[in-house]
Formats: sequence, C-alpha cells, structure tokens
Amino acid sequence: MGELRVRDVSEKDLLARILRVLSPASRAEVGPGDDAAVLAVPGGRIVATTDTLVHGPDFRLAWTSAYDLGYKAAAVNVADVAAMGARPTALLVALALPESLPASFVDHLATGFRDALAELAPGCAVEGGDLTVSDTLTVAVTALGVLDGVEPVLRSGARPGDEVAVAGELGAAARGLGILFRRFRDADGTPVVVSTDALSPAERHDIDAQLRPRPPVELGVVAARAGATALMDISDGLLLDSSRIADASGVTISLDADLDDAALTGGEDHALLACFPAGMAPPAFEVIGRVRERGETAVLVKGAVRDDRGGWDPYADWDSTLG
Amino acid sequence: MGELRVRDVSEKDLLARILRVLSPASRAEVGPGDDAAVLAVPGGRIVATTDTLVHGPDFRLAWTSAYDLGYKAAAVNVADVAAMGARPTALLVALALPESLPASFVDHLATGFRDALAELAPGCAVEGGDLTVSDTLTVAVTALGVLDGVEPVLRSGARPGDEVAVAGELGAAARGLGILFRRFRDADGTPVVVSTDALSPAERHDIDAQLRPRPPVELGVVAARAGATALMDISDGLLLDSSRIADASGVTISLDADLDDAALTGGEDHALLACFPAGMAPPAFEVIGRVRERGETAVLVKGAVRDDRGGWDPYADWDSTLG
Repeated sequence: MGELRVRDVSEKDLLARILRVLSPASRAEVGPGDDAAVLAVPGGRIVATTDTLVHGPDFRLAWTSAYDLGYKAAAVNVADVAAMGARPTALLVALALPESLPASFVDHLATGFRDALAELAPGCAVEGGDLTVSDTLTVAVTALGVLDGVEPVLRSGARPGDEVAVAGELGAAARGLGILFRRFRDADGTPVVVSTDALSPAERHDIDAQLRPRPPVELGVVAARAGATALMDISDGLLLDSSRIADASGVTISLDADLDDAALTGGEDHALLACFPAGMAPPAFEVIGRVRERGETAVLVKGAVRDDRGGWDPYADWDSTLG
Repeated sequence: MGELRVRDVSEKDLLARILRVLSPASRAEVGPGDDAAVLAVPGGRIVATTDTLVHGPDFRLAWTSAYDLGYKAAAVNVADVAAMGARPTALLVALALPESLPASFVDHLATGFRDALAELAPGCAVEGGDLTVSDTLTVAVTALGVLDGVEPVLRSGARPGDEVAVAGELGAAARGLGILFRRFRDADGTPVVVSTDALSPAERHDIDAQLRPRPPVELGVVAARAGATALMDISDGLLLDSSRIADASGVTISLDADLDDAALTGGEDHALLACFPAGMAPPAFEVIGRVRERGETAVLVKGAVRDDRGGWDPYADWDSTLG
C-alpha cells in the first residue's frame, strides 16, 4: 500500500483532516464550510473568502490570456461573497509568477481584475497583495465584503416548502471547457491557442463563459433582501451544489425544470442557487424546483435519483499528465 | 534584446506596473504599499494583508517540516497585521498541494498554524480557506485584524526628532538561513535534511528563528497605544526596511546602536521597527537611532552611508537553478 498521498484522498476528506485541527479554535460567526467566513469586527461583521487559480488544474495559458485570468480570478471570488448575500468591497491578490513570464503579463492581468470589478462589483477594488516567484503561475485571491444590513445567507437554511431558484447561466462554462478540450489540443493533448474564426457565435459564448465568467454578483444582496433561506454560487455543477444545500439544511431538493446534462452537471458558471419561501423569489431568479422533507437522497431530478452528480474535484479529477 | 521578462524586472518595478492599473480604483483608507490595507466597514475598519510561501524561493521541504511551514506562514502574516498597530483576528489559508504529497502533510501544516496563532496571536484563528492542486507547493495566507480604538500606524508618519526603536530579534533568521545554505546542502547544492546533532545551541536558535519565526505580534498594539509615528515589521532587513520608512516619511533614519552585519541586513525575523516621539518608546522596544531631517540618503549607520542595503528581492535574488 505505502503512504496515503494527496492524490488518494478526496478534497472533502482532506478538508475534514484540516478542520479537525483548526475548527476548535474558530471564533467566527460562520467559519470554514460555507462560501465565505463571516467575521465579527467592531461595529459589525464582514464576509471573507479566498480562492486560488493554479496553472494546470485551473487554467492553461494557451487558452487563457493574462486579461482573462485576472477577470476570472476576480469574478469567482466576488461570486463567493455574493453567495453569502453580501456586497464585495475589497480584494487582496497574491501573485506567484514564473521568472520567464513577460513582464507585461502583470499589466494585462491587473487590467482583467480592474474590468471585472468595474463590471461585476462596482465599488470593489484590489486593495492589497503580494508578489513572489514560482515555477507554477498561481493567482491567490481573497475577497472581502460587507452585509448591508442583512443577515448572511448560509447553505443550511433551506426549509421544506421553499422554492429553489437560480440566477445566471447554467452549463455554458462547462460546454466551453468541452470545446477547448475537444478542439484546441494537439495530438499529445497539449492545449493550443484558440482560433475564434473556427467558432460559431454560440461556441464563442460558451468559451467566453469558461474564460471570463460573469456571475450575477449584484443579485446576492437582492436574494438576501428578498428573504432567501439558503444561497450559494454554483461552482461545481447544479446537482453537486444542490446536494450541498440539501445536506447542510437536512432537506431534499427536488428539481422539476427542464435541464439538460450541461445545466445539471456543468460547473464554473458561478450562477447563484437560492431557496426562497414560496412565492418570494425575485424576478431575476428562475424557479427550478422545490425543497422537500429529507428523503433518501439529497437531490431528485423530476422525481428520480441521479447517480452522476458531476462536478469537479481537483484532487480526484485532475491528471497532470493529461492536462 | 527580446521581450522583458519577470526575471529582468525588480519587484518594486513590477508592483509599480500593477498599481498603475489598479490604484485609481482604490477606495481604501490605506491601499497598496504599506504592511497591510486598512478598509472601512460599517461601524469601523479592518486591517487586511496577504503573504504567500512558495516551495523553492520561500522554503525547501528538506529544511522545513509541514509543521514549521504552517507556523511560519501564520507568523509572517500576523506580523504584517501587528505592523499596522492592529490585533490579528482571522486567517484565510489557500493551499495548493502537489498530488504526491503525503496526505498527513495537511495535519502537520494545520497544527503549525494552530500553534503559531495560540502562541503569537491568541484569539486569532483560521476561519476559511481554499484547497487546490499544483506542481508547486504553495501556501497563500490572508490575515485580517482589528484596530482596538487606535489609528493605524503607517510607514509615512516618522518625524525629525523621533526615536527609532526595535522589538524582537535582528539577524537570527538570516544567520539560520546561512547555516542551512552552507552546511545542509549536498555537492550539487540540493538541500539535505538538517541534523540538529551537529549544531551548537546558538546555531539551533538561529535555524529555529529562520524556520519558526516568533515576531512580537502583541507589541504592535502596544506601539500604537504608545504613540508610534511609524511602524513596520522587518522582513527584508533593518537597512532596507528603515529606508522604506525614511522614504515614505520624507526623513533620514540615523542608526547609532552597535549592530553587526546580520542585524543590519538580515531579513525574516519580523521584528517590529517603530518610530516614537522622543522618550515615548515602551520598555519592550530598544532605541537604536534617531529620525533626522531628510538628507542625501535615506539611512545613515553611525553617521555613514552604507551601500549594501541587503534584503531579499525574490525577483532579483532567487535563482531556481541554485536554490
């Protein structure tokens, strides 16, 4: 057998090992386990979350420009703040850069950050960071946000009778990644530069959704104000992320809408998944299902159990030899 | 000539390029450029900083255990919070792990974080994080802190007539790194495991200072309460970091104490460097110099100019082929 390695363990199990050591010391209102932590500060509380993009498992420079990388790194982090019902106010960005990278890379990266924040989270800016070198290009982002007079919306508040609703796209980013994997790799599987000429408008849209996701960040606060009982952003696919709300809330989520496989299992769109008391979902949210008493499974699709929850676990799914 | 690469540019210049894009959007009370950002939140403000440790330039696993890595990653980040005169309250930790790493690595790493916080910053805990895989082991930490009724102490407030003082060790971490480089590498320069049997107590102390720094975190608030006019932690050596306060404040710092080369140029102890109005330095701080009107140079040592400011610039100093 030999020693257990990171590759032999699921992300969930690895996290459980870490939390066994660290959780007893937590003093946060919401500690590890939700989209973001909620921390008391004098006079109020803040929301804080971190997400890292690593060359290889998270992006490939043949497909992703420096601008797109900055845009996506900003987008996925402000989406986690929105997923608490909060408004993003500041990012801290730690860059670890290979020495061979063109120095102009940081200009385009910074511009991607700036534009993403201007579009998705006006009022939020990069307020700090760190620079170091690494053989592996790594962008580690922390996002901070404030609760504008609302309670944070956790994954654990869904109640039987609630409606399940989404805002934002489902499946586009995963379709885009599929196009990149199928059509923009050479015979060895190495990513090659994307030629947009060969793409239909729909394909371009999907690739854009993968490379420059545009989560509906401003709707996080809207959901909280409308009385959302549970809220998260869909980073690992609707089925897997629905099961997380279902498990955290002790309920079953029953999805009734017509949803294709990409919509059910595709991650990385960072759409918002919310539960609302019946009839309370704001217009920007589309109702796709209902919360029920906990049954045998966490999620039902048109009344049936789905075995393939999909989603992306970097510890189980990433193969550095295949890319 | 060819294109300018990251290796051709100083960290300072690279940062300047990034800030040219991002600074116009900053809304923080203190944005990029000091030890940490100061952000307004409803009812108050918080201090936020991020620092990343990358395998290779920042640590080598032959020398650094998982426990030590966690300890150091926590220590250097809470030191940056202390360097604003603030009290650390929460860490977010993003881990990027090679798949071949033993899974037990995360247990020891988490324990190092826990113990460092219990010793250096009681009341501060890891409240969130992120897990991903990478070919390069990377630990990206964000530290948050609160200002307990004091103003943040920046690098820019030193005034002629102030005393310059330090709390904590000077030079020990650099001496420890020197011992590691000289005595614990094989013929190819590859780090080899440290045998503590071969070390004197003083050498062990210095290696411990390098691997598990113990900055005087609680003295950050003490300095702020005592009226410190400038404050930072010494991560790149007393000379280089003194010049940063001198430049930010538009003054010259004149160091008068007997300080050897290690104390003047050695980084990574994360001692606190502070300026106080004359006679106001608290007992835990040792007065080592005086702030003067700005002269031709930022720093004088016993009245003389030193050319070698020392310090560690990862973009200029790190050579991945030499380690």
